[in-house]
Amino acid sequence: MDIEQFRKAGYAAIDSICDYYSNISNVPVKAQVQPGYLIDQLPKEAPENGQEFDEISKDFGKLILPGITHWQSPSFFAYFPSNSTFECMLADLYSASVANPGFNWICSPACTELEQVVVEWAARMLGLSENFWGSSGIGGGVIMGSASDSAFTAAIAAREKALRQLSIQNGVKPAENGQVEIPDSIRQEYGQKLVVYGSTQTHSIGAKSALMLGLPFRAIPVSAEDQYSLRGESVKEAIEKDKQDGLVPFLVYATIGTTSTGAIDRIGEIGEVLKEYPTVFLHVDAAWAGVANALPKYRESLRLQEVNEYADSFCTNFHKWGLTTFDCSIFCVKNRQDLTQALDVTPSYLRSKEADAGTVIDYRNWQPALGRRFRSIKLWFVLRSYGIQGFQKHLERGIEHCDELAKVVESSKNFEIVTKPSLSLLVFRLKPSSTTAVQVDDDELNIINQRLYTNLDLRYDVFLSQTVLHSKESNKFVLRLAMGGVNTTFKDVEKTWKIIEEEGEKVLDDWEKQKKELEIES
Amino acid sequence: MDIEQFRKAGYAAIDSICDYYSNISNVPVKAQVQPGYLIDQLPKEAPENGQEFDEISKDFGKLILPGITHWQSPSFFAYFPSNSTFECMLADLYSASVANPGFNWICSPACTELEQVVVEWAARMLGLSENFWGSSGIGGGVIMGSASDSAFTAAIAAREKALRQLSIQNGVKPAENGQVEIPDSIRQEYGQKLVVYGSTQTHSIGAKSALMLGLPFRAIPVSAEDQYSLRGESVKEAIEKDKQDGLVPFLVYATIGTTSTGAIDRIGEIGEVLKEYPTVFLHVDAAWAGVANALPKYRESLRLQEVNEYADSFCTNFHKWGLTTFDCSIFCVKNRQDLTQALDVTPSYLRSKEADAGTVIDYRNWQPALGRRFRSIKLWFVLRSYGIQGFQKHLERGIEHCDELAKVVESSKNFEIVTKPSLSLLVFRLKPSSTTAVQVDDDELNIINQRLYTNLDLRYDVFLSQTVLHSKESNKFVLRLAMGGVNTTFKDVEKTWKIIEEEGEKVLDDWEKQKKELEIES
Repeated sequence: MDIEQFRKAGYAAIDSICDYYSNISNVPVKAQVQPGYLIDQLPKEAPENGQEFDEISKDFGKLILPGITHWQSPSFFAYFPSNSTFECMLADLYSASVANPGFNWICSPACTELEQVVVEWAARMLGLSENFWGSSGIGGGVIMGSASDSAFTAAIAAREKALRQLSIQNGVKPAENGQVEIPDSIRQEYGQKLVVYGSTQTHSIGAKSALMLGLPFRAIPVSAEDQYSLRGESVKEAIEKDKQDGLVPFLVYATIGTTSTGAIDRIGEIGEVLKEYPTVFLHVDAAWAGVANALPKYRESLRLQEVNEYADSFCTNFHKWGLTTFDCSIFCVKNRQDLTQALDVTPSYLRSKEADAGTVIDYRNWQPALGRRFRSIKLWFVLRSYGIQGFQKHLERGIEHCDELAKVVESSKNFEIVTKPSLSLLVFRLKPSSTTAVQVDDDELNIINQRLYTNLDLRYDVFLSQTVLHSKESNKFVLRLAMGGVNTTFKDVEKTWKIIEEEGEKVLDDWEKQKKELEIES
Repeated sequence: MDIEQFRKAGYAAIDSICDYYSNISNVPVKAQVQPGYLIDQLPKEAPENGQEFDEISKDFGKLILPGITHWQSPSFFAYFPSNSTFECMLADLYSASVANPGFNWICSPACTELEQVVVEWAARMLGLSENFWGSSGIGGGVIMGSASDSAFTAAIAAREKALRQLSIQNGVKPAENGQVEIPDSIRQEYGQKLVVYGSTQTHSIGAKSALMLGLPFRAIPVSAEDQYSLRGESVKEAIEKDKQDGLVPFLVYATIGTTSTGAIDRIGEIGEVLKEYPTVFLHVDAAWAGVANALPKYRESLRLQEVNEYADSFCTNFHKWGLTTFDCSIFCVKNRQDLTQALDVTPSYLRSKEADAGTVIDYRNWQPALGRRFRSIKLWFVLRSYGIQGFQKHLERGIEHCDELAKVVESSKNFEIVTKPSLSLLVFRLKPSSTTAVQVDDDELNIINQRLYTNLDLRYDVFLSQTVLHSKESNKFVLRLAMGGVNTTFKDVEKTWKIIEEEGEKVLDDWEKQKKELEIES
């Protein structure tokens, strides 16, 4: 494709994206395809000869779009939102136009420096303390591909930090530059005794990080009474038990805004407990809710001050509710050496005079992989185009929708809100009120809610998520509706709610019928 | 930004990219900026109010482009190429327009299925055996962000596989579905005794993967005589030594096309050796050279048949020499369960009826992170737009340039080719021939080549890499010139070579002068 062909194909691409967004409210949110739909339509091998781009781009509409679940649909309420904005589409285009693997500053100085700047913009906007800012010279932030990457990177940093501490405790002297070499004997003795902690509500990235390191993950029970928040005393109990067994706690994953219910772990309590265990690193995963710190009035409930005081690292995904197209996970640490001491491997072909002089950041040493995309431009475009106020308005709209919906659910005869609404996330279940004809035992509630979810999941015009709330008291099967879409209005929320109500009604009617039949039979 | 504003800004973005590429031959390849150039120009905080997109996009040209090192410049010869094509820029734009985190099939069926299809297209085009194809139902491939991610994922899979085998050896019975649960006692006993192997020429991602797992990496010495290839007997020797020390070998990283010289490890020899060590997983990193398997006549020298016979996993980056904009690393395994058994963690909120029914792939279980971008569309566009023949022509051009340049260097009086040219990579150094006036001892060669590199590195119109070749015989400081750029002609290669020759001449003149001065002084 030459430059003029690109211009033509580029305009056409822009036009087709305009068409897509003009029409996005009119198509079902969920892809209406069956497994294998695309595999069956495509040839088994790449074509021998090149094809016209016109033909190829037409196939995007013909073959790909039917298999797209529309995360930007105003009716998308599953998982968490994955906001995408026009600004970011253009940013990704610009980024691809100057594509480079970005591992060193010299790969493209703009990429490293813009990332340093916008990550600090983000940190300041969210009220993270100066310790997390890159300009502190000690802490700093980096853009990762996902909260998983952030959590896993924190885990590696935490493990190495704990092993360095254990090395010192065992008589290893730091070198002149302060670096501590971990002797093999320390790895042999402690490497497999390390333990990761989180709660039963911690996102699976916690358990997966531990699995990847080959270490155990303790899913500490929480209580429905505490709104599924992890408490300090439970952490202490779990750690103490392991210590008695000769194990070494090295990492706690605390969550601000759990996936299931948006629960906020008690960071202050946990932080106080961890003071007694200096080998433990505290990573705060605020993947979804963290961006809401842009609204000062929510900072207290988001325990921002506690995060600033106690967390070693913090992550929030602007690619969820933060208007920034996937991928843009902000990962901040109070001590950048926690990362570089765990991840810096520099062979001769990766050396540069700028890094040797210590005047630049080479971000490859802040992350597991070598190569990295130019992601910061997305966040730069978003924060400039929306401004802090525009960003705040977007968040407020999601929260308002949730508040409004909460009122509707509260006044509904067949549903109950299960946990306190958390920002833009509502967790509810089918539960006929005592005044209705249909009566359902507590034990049966999980069954009817599973039925309701199954029926909703068979539809294409509605998309929300299921989850199971494990607590000390019970296991509840519930539904979640996550608001905060860029294109969502309250009318869209109402439309989906109406469908849920109708499907709920049907489930209860069937339940009633089934019960009567059983009574007749018995 | 509304739809019509996006249309306008989109056209403008396309136009500015056209301008960029129209002019790319006329600007120096390396960014002409000093550390901090951008940080100093940007405000410390995000703006309070939104700004006009016109203004923002102008800043891309004004602030960002000056800090871009032009990897698509025809004069880019550093590291390895990072090809970017117009097709991929559009693909990234389309991908951003339907952005979703892609962790499950239902997130957007098109994303998962297109990936299954194009990864198999790639595997077939490269001559990988059916065992690596997804359609085998047993093996299969996935697109990762980088060769680091692929190598690290292989490491996790390898560790878990080794521990499962050790569990069975220690009496653990597989469950009915064949799954083996690794008891904690096995992790305690063997977890920290595992060892990773590669050569001194293995990319730093080998050592970094081991570091991330907290396990030792053995950089096995190679010989200049063997063209820096890792030999089977050296692997055997290293493994035997560790076994005598009670350690457990579990992973060998073999390389097809090392970064420093494009060396091809002896996969067949290594594979035969590993037959005696069933706990060892063989990952073949062909990050750069692997795509050249698209040219059948190079398959023998790339040891493709040996890869097909012995490798457990294979990686090649289409985002290097393969016309596909970063990021697109193809990672294929012979047994997909090696991945899923190591990486599948499924909480209730990630369950889906399609996955429960076993009719779809959820790619999150094939990789460390949960979220993933829609990368396959780039490779789909490239392979269709170029066709296999167009893809092959692109590769051939890079190889031809290297062959041509090799002739020039061979006939040059001041330079020598250090290792046999490998595809499109030439490794050389300044070494005046015996007939020239300037004489340099073997020991002094490293010094003058370092000087040459330093001087070249101070220029902005030329960009190549340094490396040090560690071998049993010596450590040589050499220069590398990696061809294969999309926009590079042989004239561009010649232009860079002329600069290298001139700078070489200067270094030698200075060397001569310095020597004479020393003689006079003494």
